Amino acid sequence: MASVTGPEIERLIQLLARLPGLGPRSARRAALHLIKRREQLLAPLAEAMRVANETVRVCSSCGNVDTSDPCTICRDPRRDESILVVVEDVSDLWALERAGVVNARYHVLGGVLSALDGVGPSDLNLDRLLARVTDSPVKEVILALNATVDGQTTAHYVTDLLAPTGVAVSRLAHGVPVGGELDYLDEGTLAAALRSRTRG
Amino acid sequence: MASVTGPEIERLIQLLARLPGLGPRSARRAALHLIKRREQLLAPLAEAMRVANETVRVCSSCGNVDTSDPCTICRDPRRDESILVVVEDVSDLWALERAGVVNARYHVLGGVLSALDGVGPSDLNLDRLLARVTDSPVKEVILALNATVDGQTTAHYVTDLLAPTGVAVSRLAHGVPVGGELDYLDEGTLAAALRSRTRG
Repeated sequence: MASVTGPEIERLIQLLARLPGLGPRSARRAALHLIKRREQLLAPLAEAMRVANETVRVCSSCGNVDTSDPCTICRDPRRDESILVVVEDVSDLWALERAGVVNARYHVLGGVLSALDGVGPSDLNLDRLLARVTDSPVKEVILALNATVDGQTTAHYVTDLLAPTGVAVSRLAHGVPVGGELDYLDEGTLAAALRSRTRG
Repeated sequence: MASVTGPEIERLIQLLARLPGLGPRSARRAALHLIKRREQLLAPLAEAMRVANETVRVCSSCGNVDTSDPCTICRDPRRDESILVVVEDVSDLWALERAGVVNARYHVLGGVLSALDGVGPSDLNLDRLLARVTDSPVKEVILALNATVDGQTTAHYVTDLLAPTGVAVSRLAHGVPVGGELDYLDEGTLAAALRSRTRG
């Protein structure tokens, strides 16, 4: 390929191929798409990446990414400071914010405990979580972790970690997704939905 | 989202979502992926895009994209200048080069005739094709166009266009893809493969 397109285009393709969702073939398509739209897309995207690279910070309080530290959410006085929502990743924080279902602050662990991947407690943002809960207005910690084995293992661990602080720890409910069909759900979800059935 | 992540990140997500293969959700994932890998990926990609934007040219002879004009292929003295391979798009040129099946020069039409999309002959790089074939060493034009209705319509049109020049015009063969299973092929392909059957 280098002999066909020049090393500059080849380098662009190689870097694009490292984005999630793009493979070698789709990276080539994306590169051509960009080259054909230089003014409308390639130049603005190059500039947006340069700006993001210079301005984006990881919030030293909650682990969110933003252009300010502390992040917009941590600085927002309208947030309920008695509730702290613990998530695995920034993408989970964004998902909850998009849903607009909770007006609290967050704490990003940066992963979950995983024996298989060699992730231990020291690899997660746990010291800071304990510090935020101790001697603070936080009354409830909501563990919004994925319903996977590793996610639930981590939920157990965090629950034990926070027990001495006396804070209330809760988890997201298991059940039938809204709009979901029973026929497509696994037995574990059906059992959990039945166990936690509500009246009415 | 702007209130959660800052306008710089939001702009990056919006631009990434305009890449083929990425939607709004995968653009967010890609943006986070980039932000978490600033040194290894975000900064190099921003720089690669800036360089590509400044250096990439469309070859004034064949329509290929490259960092030089004429492009590397048009300047390559080892290419057989008696054969010209006509393709719809640069991506098709790249595909043929990757396959390494022809050592000739190319001509990129920049599209195919399409009544539905309102693409007429004047929208394609046809004048330049005629000029390249007239009074030149080109003895054969291979139409490597997609086997779609629009591709074949365009092939007919180009064949008629080049008829006065006396150049030989050929097309890619139809048939069973190598490794393909008959059971999954359409009737048109099977009929073409049978018609063009070879001995031995």
